[in-house]
Amino acid sequence: MRIALGIEYKGSGFCGWQSQASGCGVQDYVEAALTAFLGEPAAVVCAGRTDTGVHALAQVLHLDTGIMRDEVSWVRGTNAGLPAAVRIIWAKPVDDAFHARFSARSRTYRYLLLNTPVDNALLQGLAGWFHAPLDAKLMQQAADMLIGEHDFSSFRAAECQAKTPVKTLYEASVFRQREHLMFTFRGNAFLHHMVRNIVGSLVYVGAGRQAPEEFRDIFASRDRKRAAPTFAADGLYLSAIEYDDVFALPSFPARFPLID
Amino acid sequence: MRIALGIEYKGSGFCGWQSQASGCGVQDYVEAALTAFLGEPAAVVCAGRTDTGVHALAQVLHLDTGIMRDEVSWVRGTNAGLPAAVRIIWAKPVDDAFHARFSARSRTYRYLLLNTPVDNALLQGLAGWFHAPLDAKLMQQAADMLIGEHDFSSFRAAECQAKTPVKTLYEASVFRQREHLMFTFRGNAFLHHMVRNIVGSLVYVGAGRQAPEEFRDIFASRDRKRAAPTFAADGLYLSAIEYDDVFALPSFPARFPLID
Repeated sequence: MRIALGIEYKGSGFCGWQSQASGCGVQDYVEAALTAFLGEPAAVVCAGRTDTGVHALAQVLHLDTGIMRDEVSWVRGTNAGLPAAVRIIWAKPVDDAFHARFSARSRTYRYLLLNTPVDNALLQGLAGWFHAPLDAKLMQQAADMLIGEHDFSSFRAAECQAKTPVKTLYEASVFRQREHLMFTFRGNAFLHHMVRNIVGSLVYVGAGRQAPEEFRDIFASRDRKRAAPTFAADGLYLSAIEYDDVFALPSFPARFPLID
Repeated sequence: MRIALGIEYKGSGFCGWQSQASGCGVQDYVEAALTAFLGEPAAVVCAGRTDTGVHALAQVLHLDTGIMRDEVSWVRGTNAGLPAAVRIIWAKPVDDAFHARFSARSRTYRYLLLNTPVDNALLQGLAGWFHAPLDAKLMQQAADMLIGEHDFSSFRAAECQAKTPVKTLYEASVFRQREHLMFTFRGNAFLHHMVRNIVGSLVYVGAGRQAPEEFRDIFASRDRKRAAPTFAADGLYLSAIEYDDVFALPSFPARFPLID
């Protein structure tokens, strides 16, 4: 039987999603908690692997097991063995045709950036920060150039293992609410550090260090060295995974005020 | 010369605002950073003392010194000596008639409560949590009874050192946005644990454990033992201090998405 799990985590204390020899990946904790709950070795597949320090509001996993549990038990039983920074939100038996990674139609990442002279005391690890004024309209002009199918090599980390730098973005938006900027990127897939590199370049545009036309040239150059540095992981959230309605997965609650 | 300082802090790692022999009060850290910055012993007076684990989005302090610094230096110089969970947001020379505590016309506290079946991984320490459905309209009906001058003994901690249990509330509201409940209480002054005790009782009302009429009886009884338990400090924020416009204090930025 295949079970889909909805999970959220605060990435700050972990070395990313993926299982590590040292056991510091979120996956290590989840598989250990599931193994304890089921009484048999559990292995999970995730929809989108997140980097060190990156948070997930709506990660989706699947695992196969012969053991039957009701949906509430899956949630409570697994959470009992997890650190407080990792929570299973829902569990649901699914058709074997469902695959957390390959059935995903799109992934949405959000980036929360505080734009204030002084860094903030409260959202440490939960938001990026830029001290100088940012023009969100200019940033949106540049972000508009990212929509569609493109070669995103300019925003690709050297360590990226993706087969191709060509990805499709369906949405790239910059929204300001007072001192908060919220970036939303929805795409079929993302390269390593792609969102954080795009945010870095959009901040350059917003701060007036690069005109939107320069952003266009840098994007077209497919040269990572010309683009701005990678922005901090702190404000980055894997915020939605889209699947066909036929799988009828449960929804996630609104977890982070501005993001939802 | 008297200087007013605007400050925010995440209360989780401190034993409240007030200076302690062990040095774990936010005040201890602030006075140490100011002493290092000024090169002379610094003592501050705050607008509202917060308990262990309670956060401040807009605490106001004053101190007296003969040393002149420009406003940006006050902020940067003091922050250089503070832990990341405490930030000076602004500094401004004020008239000697200004007193952070006695000039305050009102204090506003907010309480952020997540109302979801599963506790949240991301806002640990930053939000309270209640798992069962809450009826915000019933809670508002009860909260309405708190407006005005009343004896708040039913919501007063045993250790409270206030001279009188009679305080005036100008606002008591409960607002729901999806899974988040935000409580706002604005008053002339607050008793020890008063907001957390009120939130505890309002949650009883919202969960259907007490009718608003029972809440009225308990409030009128002035008997702490009849009211609900104290709610967690996690979601509580000192969110505004109101002064006469004549003091022309700077404003605070929007720090926490839903709260502002």
